[in-house]
Amino acid sequence: MSRKVVITGVPGVGKTTVIEKALEIVGEEGITYKPINFGTFMFEVAESEGLVKDRDEMRKLEKDVQKRLQKTAAQALGKMEGNILIDTHSSVKTPVGFLAGLPEWVLKELMPDNLVLVETDADQILMRRLSDESRVRDMEGSVDIDTHQRYNRAIAAAYSMYTGCVVSIVKNPDDLLEKSAGKLADVLR
Amino acid sequence: MSRKVVITGVPGVGKTTVIEKALEIVGEEGITYKPINFGTFMFEVAESEGLVKDRDEMRKLEKDVQKRLQKTAAQALGKMEGNILIDTHSSVKTPVGFLAGLPEWVLKELMPDNLVLVETDADQILMRRLSDESRVRDMEGSVDIDTHQRYNRAIAAAYSMYTGCVVSIVKNPDDLLEKSAGKLADVLR
Amino acid sequence: MSRKVVITGVPGVGKTTVIEKALEIVGEEGITYKPINFGTFMFEVAESEGLVKDRDEMRKLEKDVQKRLQKTAAQALGKMEGNILIDTHSSVKTPVGFLAGLPEWVLKELMPDNLVLVETDADQILMRRLSDESRVRDMEGSVDIDTHQRYNRAIAAAYSMYTGCVVSIVKNPDDLLEKSAGKLADVLR
Repeated sequence: MSRKVVITGVPGVGKTTVIEKALEIVGEEGITYKPINFGTFMFEVAESEGLVKDRDEMRKLEKDVQKRLQKTAAQALGKMEGNILIDTHSSVKTPVGFLAGLPEWVLKELMPDNLVLVETDADQILMRRLSDESRVRDMEGSVDIDTHQRYNRAIAAAYSMYTGCVVSIVKNPDDLLEKSAGKLADVLR
Repeated sequence: MSRKVVITGVPGVGKTTVIEKALEIVGEEGITYKPINFGTFMFEVAESEGLVKDRDEMRKLEKDVQKRLQKTAAQALGKMEGNILIDTHSSVKTPVGFLAGLPEWVLKELMPDNLVLVETDADQILMRRLSDESRVRDMEGSVDIDTHQRYNRAIAAAYSMYTGCVVSIVKNPDDLLEKSAGKLADVLR
Repeated sequence: MSRKVVITGVPGVGKTTVIEKALEIVGEEGITYKPINFGTFMFEVAESEGLVKDRDEMRKLEKDVQKRLQKTAAQALGKMEGNILIDTHSSVKTPVGFLAGLPEWVLKELMPDNLVLVETDADQILMRRLSDESRVRDMEGSVDIDTHQRYNRAIAAAYSMYTGCVVSIVKNPDDLLEKSAGKLADVLR
């Protein structure tokens, strides 16, 4: 049986670290997942079609072209053999508002089995963002981060209505990586 | 006009008591509803197809088989004559996460007119669960119960988007059963 | 490129004032939107079909007729040339519960690009409602207003899942109309 697990979380929540540790845990049990970044995968589809040369050009594509690329990428992932762990966003916070990470035309092709929301307290996310000098991000306050995380839960519920996927909330507080990764491992098993 | 009302609530919220009292109230006005437990109804479908012998076997069925059974059950309910009151869950809390009680393929066939969320304070639910020795349940804290109830509101909103059903929140606090049942009766009238 | 922006907010949030000011701001930049009230538009469709003579009759129409009218209205808006700003509700609070303002059959035809939630603190909404003697409304407490605004966010997330529309939260606190209208103007640009 091949499973499709989608994992999401706001920037700075520490998603990548939890993914790596969880894959290590289940890997020791002989369970393997191919980790796929949805944005990167979409870029590769666009590049192979000769539509873009670098990732910056992705944002400049027409809305209809972006939609078609999302669909093509989701179709390819939907047909993929073996377990896959798709790293993406429940919603993307843009300067004007929240964009759905998994709109209907993506869900329909992908039909994920699980959707994981990696979350932690807004204050901790704020501190992690402040200490991460490698990324240039618009600084949000903790109220905005809270709003974003709550919005992600709401849209995840809509994703679940449409696909039947199980929605898991994996808390990733400071200093408890083993526990957080363990929870994700439970989903992946 | 025949109506389909779905009623949901987390374990321990006292859904059954509210349903019984409300059916009594509207019954006196000559309004009748056939109460149906969605899980039991699905089991009866599975049993009649020779797929299972007892309810425990339901959980062990393949995901695709479960999905088909949900659809068949929803189809039968969708075509049923007269008013029906369907007792189910907005979401089911499993050890890994929240499962949609009414995924798209169920909603499409059922097309409920109303969805009722029976709710009360997490602390009261906790006390009711503690005093109910007949059920063996994983003990959750009140924060988890709150999260579950909020998630149920979010997924109910998604159900409403997809079907146009009216979503009613019926509070069921301690010692106010008459009032709670009265609110449900207003929905059923 | 013609855009479809939907704007929503609970009664008393000051939606109309924000719309007027924002249209003035973008108008000075040569950006025009045709403002359309969805309810009025639906009424005009019903009137042209000889189904109703005044708006009161709209509520008395059969559910199926209302659904067909919603669909016809959404179809007409979906095909409209030029930018349109559609004034409607994310959810309507009826005596029994929340009704979806943009159910699936409306969304499918309309496919909005953006959905704006105009919000402010429940206490401010309460004060605005109290001072607005022109409208007869059921008086709600601030807890109920909060619940309604939160429900609107949840259903907006479901709308976004289904259409890919960007969801913007525009806060409209007392004495900061310029700022609120400026945020809406950012969406309209």
